[in-house]
Amino acid sequence: MPTIYSEPQALRNAVRQGEFSQPTAGHAPGFLQANLMIVPQAEAFDFLLFCQRNPKPCPLIEVLSPGALEPLCAPGANIATDIPGYRVYRDGALADERTGVASLWRDDFVAFLIGCSFSFESAVAEEGIALRHVVQGRNVAMYRTNIACVPAGRFSGDMVVSMRPIKSRDVARVVEISGRFPIAHGAPVHIGNPAALGIADIARPDYGDAVAIENDEVPVFWACGVTPQWAAQKSRLSVCITHAPGKMFVTDVRG
Amino acid sequence: MPTIYSEPQALRNAVRQGEFSQPTAGHAPGFLQANLMIVPQAEAFDFLLFCQRNPKPCPLIEVLSPGALEPLCAPGANIATDIPGYRVYRDGALADERTGVASLWRDDFVAFLIGCSFSFESAVAEEGIALRHVVQGRNVAMYRTNIACVPAGRFSGDMVVSMRPIKSRDVARVVEISGRFPIAHGAPVHIGNPAALGIADIARPDYGDAVAIENDEVPVFWACGVTPQWAAQKSRLSVCITHAPGKMFVTDVRG
Repeated sequence: MPTIYSEPQALRNAVRQGEFSQPTAGHAPGFLQANLMIVPQAEAFDFLLFCQRNPKPCPLIEVLSPGALEPLCAPGANIATDIPGYRVYRDGALADERTGVASLWRDDFVAFLIGCSFSFESAVAEEGIALRHVVQGRNVAMYRTNIACVPAGRFSGDMVVSMRPIKSRDVARVVEISGRFPIAHGAPVHIGNPAALGIADIARPDYGDAVAIENDEVPVFWACGVTPQWAAQKSRLSVCITHAPGKMFVTDVRG
Repeated sequence: MPTIYSEPQALRNAVRQGEFSQPTAGHAPGFLQANLMIVPQAEAFDFLLFCQRNPKPCPLIEVLSPGALEPLCAPGANIATDIPGYRVYRDGALADERTGVASLWRDDFVAFLIGCSFSFESAVAEEGIALRHVVQGRNVAMYRTNIACVPAGRFSGDMVVSMRPIKSRDVARVVEISGRFPIAHGAPVHIGNPAALGIADIARPDYGDAVAIENDEVPVFWACGVTPQWAAQKSRLSVCITHAPGKMFVTDVRG
């Protein structure tokens, strides 16, 4: 039986000691978890502007100052060592996946912490609405769409969405509940018609795991934190570092 | 009887033609009005980060790309000519006040449009709660406080607040109503005790006009869009351009 960490600091310490390198879902319940995006300072204005112009896929929890490693939202933490997995992209291509990036750190790196969907998923579950990928212990299904993000400097690209099958009687409640969590992508961006988003085959997600949609269910689509990674790949940054899928930065912020 | 412009575009055109140079309160009712802040691109990341870290005084409506003059929130507009008054600061000091800044424009200027309080004031008035400075046709009273903003790079400083006397029976409603308008500074930051904010004499505001507080009224304080101007002065930017007090940029966005 694996350890479940209830406190963010304990989880981060275990990661830093090399004792934990698993996905973070289910750990430190009640605390905000964050997507990570690190870009060089020369690209940081454009990327911050991209987030400001696209708040549904890129809700900012915190932006660290250039070179800074310790976020305000997690005193004592180190952004380069406390995440269970990192991905390094060079010239737009995945170059490396590793458990820490301290040895790659540069004084001009700017770390962005971007909200993820765990907060609203917990709130939905607490209202008695089960989410299939959570029940099945799988990653949520994610798709590239034809919804263009508002470009900012060299950053542009289409929105990536996550999809959750919701019983038709629960769709309105799920909209209301998720809408209360703007930092967790807020209300859905689309309900019901994958083809309208340019999704050719709902059974073949671009990221994550496929999930069945039953007869009494509607596919509901939320803006997804993978969007900025996709935009960064498309814009072929010389270097950028992200968390590995499902392995998030766990903050000390309740929400 | 002066003309009241009901449409944002007509007002902006009148400004551009030199036919209107008055405060914009009461014009184009129902449309968002914005504070303006223009900084050189070299300072733009720090200033954008300052806004991201201090969303109550600096709620962003839009950030234009470097050199761009036409905002998305007002197609056809020109940010350098369509505001009834501009102030130019050099090395932290007011250097000039003028009706247009086209001749000063530089390709590296970045324009920030920041929400103002007009939207929530209209909503409060529509609920039957009169605001004295509006009734008296005066500028709202504003004060520097001891509430430190979260610094970002070279930008730091204390929050500037606006104060409106509210009848004690209406205070809770005013909190609820203004809280629905995060782009207009949202809910108050403080209620009832000027001394706790470091305000020595409520009868002597640092900006705007003093207003009486009656016996059955409570002073209610909101974060104010003058905050970033104050921070820019304190940080002694080589150059920055703002709107003149009360003379706002009128957008095409309803809200």
